[in-house]
Amino acid sequence: MPDVKDREEIFKIHSQGKPLAKNVSLKKVAERTPGFSGADLANLMNEAAILAARRNKDKIYETEVLESIDRVLLGPERKSHILSEKEKKVVAYHEAGHALIAHFLPNCDPVQKVSILARGQAAGYTIKIPEREKYLKFKSEFLDNLSALLGGYIAEKEIFGEVTTGASNDLKEATKMAKSLATQFGMSELLGPRTFGDHQEFIFWGREITQEKDYSEKVAQLIDEEISKFISLCYNKATEVIKTKKDYLDKIAKVLLEKETIERKEFLKIFT
Amino acid sequence: MPDVKDREEIFKIHSQGKPLAKNVSLKKVAERTPGFSGADLANLMNEAAILAARRNKDKIYETEVLESIDRVLLGPERKSHILSEKEKKVVAYHEAGHALIAHFLPNCDPVQKVSILARGQAAGYTIKIPEREKYLKFKSEFLDNLSALLGGYIAEKEIFGEVTTGASNDLKEATKMAKSLATQFGMSELLGPRTFGDHQEFIFWGREITQEKDYSEKVAQLIDEEISKFISLCYNKATEVIKTKKDYLDKIAKVLLEKETIERKEFLKIFT
Amino acid sequence: MPDVKDREEIFKIHSQGKPLAKNVSLKKVAERTPGFSGADLANLMNEAAILAARRNKDKIYETEVLESIDRVLLGPERKSHILSEKEKKVVAYHEAGHALIAHFLPNCDPVQKVSILARGQAAGYTIKIPEREKYLKFKSEFLDNLSALLGGYIAEKEIFGEVTTGASNDLKEATKMAKSLATQFGMSELLGPRTFGDHQEFIFWGREITQEKDYSEKVAQLIDEEISKFISLCYNKATEVIKTKKDYLDKIAKVLLEKETIERKEFLKIFT
Amino acid sequence: MPDVKDREEIFKIHSQGKPLAKNVSLKKVAERTPGFSGADLANLMNEAAILAARRNKDKIYETEVLESIDRVLLGPERKSHILSEKEKKVVAYHEAGHALIAHFLPNCDPVQKVSILARGQAAGYTIKIPEREKYLKFKSEFLDNLSALLGGYIAEKEIFGEVTTGASNDLKEATKMAKSLATQFGMSELLGPRTFGDHQEFIFWGREITQEKDYSEKVAQLIDEEISKFISLCYNKATEVIKTKKDYLDKIAKVLLEKETIERKEFLKIFT
Amino acid sequence: MPDVKDREEIFKIHSQGKPLAKNVSLKKVAERTPGFSGADLANLMNEAAILAARRNKDKIYETEVLESIDRVLLGPERKSHILSEKEKKVVAYHEAGHALIAHFLPNCDPVQKVSILARGQAAGYTIKIPEREKYLKFKSEFLDNLSALLGGYIAEKEIFGEVTTGASNDLKEATKMAKSLATQFGMSELLGPRTFGDHQEFIFWGREITQEKDYSEKVAQLIDEEISKFISLCYNKATEVIKTKKDYLDKIAKVLLEKETIERKEFLKIFT
Amino acid sequence: MPDVKDREEIFKIHSQGKPLAKNVSLKKVAERTPGFSGADLANLMNEAAILAARRNKDKIYETEVLESIDRVLLGPERKSHILSEKEKKVVAYHEAGHALIAHFLPNCDPVQKVSILARGQAAGYTIKIPEREKYLKFKSEFLDNLSALLGGYIAEKEIFGEVTTGASNDLKEATKMAKSLATQFGMSELLGPRTFGDHQEFIFWGREITQEKDYSEKVAQLIDEEISKFISLCYNKATEVIKTKKDYLDKIAKVLLEKETIERKEFLKIFT
Repeated sequence: MPDVKDREEIFKIHSQGKPLAKNVSLKKVAERTPGFSGADLANLMNEAAILAARRNKDKIYETEVLESIDRVLLGPERKSHILSEKEKKVVAYHEAGHALIAHFLPNCDPVQKVSILARGQAAGYTIKIPEREKYLKFKSEFLDNLSALLGGYIAEKEIFGEVTTGASNDLKEATKMAKSLATQFGMSELLGPRTFGDHQEFIFWGREITQEKDYSEKVAQLIDEEISKFISLCYNKATEVIKTKKDYLDKIAKVLLEKETIERKEFLKIFT
Repeated sequence: MPDVKDREEIFKIHSQGKPLAKNVSLKKVAERTPGFSGADLANLMNEAAILAARRNKDKIYETEVLESIDRVLLGPERKSHILSEKEKKVVAYHEAGHALIAHFLPNCDPVQKVSILARGQAAGYTIKIPEREKYLKFKSEFLDNLSALLGGYIAEKEIFGEVTTGASNDLKEATKMAKSLATQFGMSELLGPRTFGDHQEFIFWGREITQEKDYSEKVAQLIDEEISKFISLCYNKATEVIKTKKDYLDKIAKVLLEKETIERKEFLKIFT
Repeated sequence: MPDVKDREEIFKIHSQGKPLAKNVSLKKVAERTPGFSGADLANLMNEAAILAARRNKDKIYETEVLESIDRVLLGPERKSHILSEKEKKVVAYHEAGHALIAHFLPNCDPVQKVSILARGQAAGYTIKIPEREKYLKFKSEFLDNLSALLGGYIAEKEIFGEVTTGASNDLKEATKMAKSLATQFGMSELLGPRTFGDHQEFIFWGREITQEKDYSEKVAQLIDEEISKFISLCYNKATEVIKTKKDYLDKIAKVLLEKETIERKEFLKIFT
Repeated sequence: MPDVKDREEIFKIHSQGKPLAKNVSLKKVAERTPGFSGADLANLMNEAAILAARRNKDKIYETEVLESIDRVLLGPERKSHILSEKEKKVVAYHEAGHALIAHFLPNCDPVQKVSILARGQAAGYTIKIPEREKYLKFKSEFLDNLSALLGGYIAEKEIFGEVTTGASNDLKEATKMAKSLATQFGMSELLGPRTFGDHQEFIFWGREITQEKDYSEKVAQLIDEEISKFISLCYNKATEVIKTKKDYLDKIAKVLLEKETIERKEFLKIFT
Repeated sequence: MPDVKDREEIFKIHSQGKPLAKNVSLKKVAERTPGFSGADLANLMNEAAILAARRNKDKIYETEVLESIDRVLLGPERKSHILSEKEKKVVAYHEAGHALIAHFLPNCDPVQKVSILARGQAAGYTIKIPEREKYLKFKSEFLDNLSALLGGYIAEKEIFGEVTTGASNDLKEATKMAKSLATQFGMSELLGPRTFGDHQEFIFWGREITQEKDYSEKVAQLIDEEISKFISLCYNKATEVIKTKKDYLDKIAKVLLEKETIERKEFLKIFT
Repeated sequence: MPDVKDREEIFKIHSQGKPLAKNVSLKKVAERTPGFSGADLANLMNEAAILAARRNKDKIYETEVLESIDRVLLGPERKSHILSEKEKKVVAYHEAGHALIAHFLPNCDPVQKVSILARGQAAGYTIKIPEREKYLKFKSEFLDNLSALLGGYIAEKEIFGEVTTGASNDLKEATKMAKSLATQFGMSELLGPRTFGDHQEFIFWGREITQEKDYSEKVAQLIDEEISKFISLCYNKATEVIKTKKDYLDKIAKVLLEKETIERKEFLKIFT
């Protein structure tokens, strides 16, 4: 994956021959696009050009470029997506849950944006970007981000007494994170400093297949238990935040229902 | 999947060049076709055109369009399908079972139509459509719809003392729902807020294969137990409704045997 | 699968251009060919034409059509197949066993024909056809037909003190039925109203492969126990019939050894 | 598989245009070639023609045809195969073991020929052919033939105090027979009248693959135990024969070492 | 794999037609490239030529050749890779951990170079090369090198109180080594002098697949336990070194943060 | 596989047109090449021709033919392979270990040659050839040869206190032998006279795949235990020889270090 300097370089290449306004800071754009591949960056530039054209601008300004980041990251906004009032409230509390945990746990990446506008397949979204790109992640960072991931689910449970199908992707991602903690990064005290699963990858008819299970049934059980323990640990931590900071949860949800999208600045004001 | 607005748009496209009567409300049709793909909508329009032609109408009226919905959804009516009196009675009670549960459980989608006319592979059918399209589903809605799914099986058992092969598809669907509750949506207290089964999909010779089992045998057993627990919970809930509302069950079955098909209005009259 | 009306229609198509005698009742043929596919019906018509030609008839009469049904169902008669006297006796008692159970258990399909003439791979055969085609099957019907399937095996054991390899196909079929009772039709009290085995089918190099085991080892064991319980239940039921009605068993076997084939009428006379 | 009458017919076809002596009884040849496919019969006729040519005969006489049966059944004699005296003794006792059991157990097919001439891969061979072709096999016949199969192994153990690698194919065949008794023919009291293993066959890249294990681990264990129980039962039965009839064992081995091959007549004389 | 003499020969071939300075000792280069394949050696020569060209030298001197070894071994240096101060400190202590263990355990290969310059995918690296190429490895050498592999992980834990994702590859390699000790080299007292896993390899669509598990679940569990025991043994040994020699750990890390790369000579001075 | 007579014949064919000296005994060569395929024999003749040419001889003499046997059997000698003194000592004791056991256990094939010259992948080798080709192998021969296979590993342990990676292939071969004893040849008292593992072979993309496990987990465990028991039995037997005959072990190793290769005659002198 390209790092921040690579991205700036790649970006320069893709902006050649495009009417880019002079004041666009490619460095800034590079900083806001961690995890983007070369193809994503090319795509981003095209989306910005389309947006500028739609707005009848003769040049691509920074606004267009920055606005296109979300589009590339999460897919196009889905205007026609009509949620019921109840559903909107669920989505608002769900995203508020993510954002609240991310705000209060010390090792989470900071919240950049929270929104209940549907994008791609998601009914809402919360964007967290670390202040600077990271090449190493401490176990504590891993765990706090896992807690934030569970925030939506917990908020639904806390406010509505039961959960919806909306947390499915969060749970999948959380499970994957907890599994890698235990099996790839040696972060489980019980399993110790070793890896599990040979990750013998091969391409089968153009798709990558992973054959993983190179351990005994007993170890498989220990891994399952460790995954559940990590999930449980983060769940409890996040639940405590949700319960003790419920006022803020309500506030974030309320603002979301009013304004649909909250940028970082506005978000921080909620807590002042 | 297209949402209600998408469907209206798609519908407009497919009706171009077809002799559509002016008073046909595309919005209404869009509302009654949740879950239809673009291809289904194209198909629906063709079926309506064929129906109109068969009836020697010069235009496609709303009647033809609405009548075609069932056809696209469930396949053509099978007139030649001759059930014995006993079988007809079984089908009537089976469908009455579905409809009764759907009517009395608070979180079920409302019944639109109940029928003992064979369509496609099914000997009868009960159509439930939510009042407005849903993007999120609460656990309670999930469970009540699962109960309704078991209603046919329970009614057979209650009335005839034993079940027939006719519930096979319902049981398959119910099992699938219970499994997703436990493994994809974090709705099992025992298994907690995580997912199971990596759903690593790949295309093999033009068919999609899913390799799922990424957990230990012990977890596999817990999942099986949770599926059975959900099924059992819904089974008991539905059985209670069937037993306490048996008069209505008999009434619905009786009307079905007389009229073969009951639309929503008529259906609601039964309970007044 | 085509139903009785479909079959009559298909039959009409396939008899076009063939010298069919006027009095042939296509309705009757349709009624006697439940479970036949379109290809089977075409095949049946050709066999009847060949038979008529061999008999130097200028038209295909009903006799030829009806005689061809067995041929299509079970394969050609194997005249050269020379069994020893002992083997003939085994086959006679085996078929008598099937027929006896089918006659005395209340929910079995009625016996149409019993024979010890070899056809295709089978050394003898018993044909049971329901009086009218069924679209639903009660658990009790399932179980009584399963008992009849075991009748041949039990008769061998009862008469000769040990069984032969001749019951292999019956046991395979019985196992398959018992399994579907437990895993597809929710007819096992222990396993409850759910299905097991995802039946994810795919075509692999032109053959259909089924990947079934989507449950835990513990459930696999329960399923095995339920299959054995159903088999055992039916085995005991059938054994009781064989023991208490042994006179009739001997009579059927004796007639079979004399006449080789018994049609329904004759068969019923045995019990009068 | 062609039966005895089929074989006579096929044989007639393949002998057309070949200089077959008039007194050759095709019926007799057909009777001595149970289990031969059409291709085997064609092959047999060619081998007989080659043999006649080698012997400068102008016609193919019955001698040539009968001598060619072994060649087609077991492959060509391997003259160059030089065994040590010790090895010859092992082979002689091994084959004597098979023959002895086959002679004394009441339900074995009768011994036609015993030989210590190497043919194909085998260092020696014992041919048993039933008096007339069988279409059904009783459990008792199955078990006695299984005992005969173990006779070679037991004779080695009895005479030399330990076994050699030479019994490998016998053990493989015996295991296969015991398994089919338990899983395909319902001949195990413990496992009951059902089958195990779905035998879902498919062709993969030109080879037939069988996926068998459709049962639980517990059943797999029961099947293993039943296989061992059948093997053990037959082993004990055969051991008893070997021990009580050791004089005959020595006699057969002695004759084999002298004459290399014993035909049925001579074989029977040993016991008079 | 080519040994040291082979490498010298191969090197001669690849340097033909290239402007190689006369004083370049091909023997020395061969000695410093154990484990290089023929392709690696060709690659090395090309890299040296490019480096010389970039430096406007008319000949390839030994400096260029030696500098190219790391490039071929670990990939190009990644200048743009900007680590935070915290991350740099983590990497420094991580590499210091590897180097410290390698220095103090008697059977480790000697440290040639330690660096916190990113190369290829790695944020830093430690190069250990045995004084002369080995064809056999004693168990004690295996174990001490395994301890060194864990040194980075342990140093992170010791200094920062928790580990990062940076040890992932070390743990994978350590697990692989521990597994081969137990399953391929007979070095586990518990498992004894035998191998496990048939390593039946085949090429599937251009990738090599290994099917390994040819043993029972109980053995799989024993293997898992032995792997953990070896890891644990080496972990404790390495932890003890890290704790008792912490001063040196700090020193190495400090020098790394100052100079980024430490060659062998400088490295040895730290301990004087 | 060709036997000794076949080999002599094949050899005659391959020597046609080659300048073979008259006194070369093809019979002798055939006797010294058991296990060679037809291709190996052709290869052997070519190697001998090349060797003769290199030595400027006008004919291929017996010396060249005999010297080429090792080359075909084990690959070319690797002159460049430079072992350290320590490694040489390890190899010498390793090979001495094999040879010592082979000499003292009564049922081993006799030692023809011991060498510490590297050939192909092996650092040294011990060649054992039975006095005459065997078609059957007694269990006792199997076990003694298995003991000899473990001799190298045990000698390393005895002399150096720990083992090296050099025994890897021996252990793999020993495991394979022990497994076949238990599962293919009925030589385990515990498992009895049957086989395990269906060895259903098929060609997949040009490689032969074996699907073996057709038994329960419990049997898999018994097989593992029997393999370990056979290994353990042979290990103890061999260890006792090594311990009681250590003087001879030292002697063989000493001669090997001096002369690098010991032929049978010289080898036998050591024990006089």
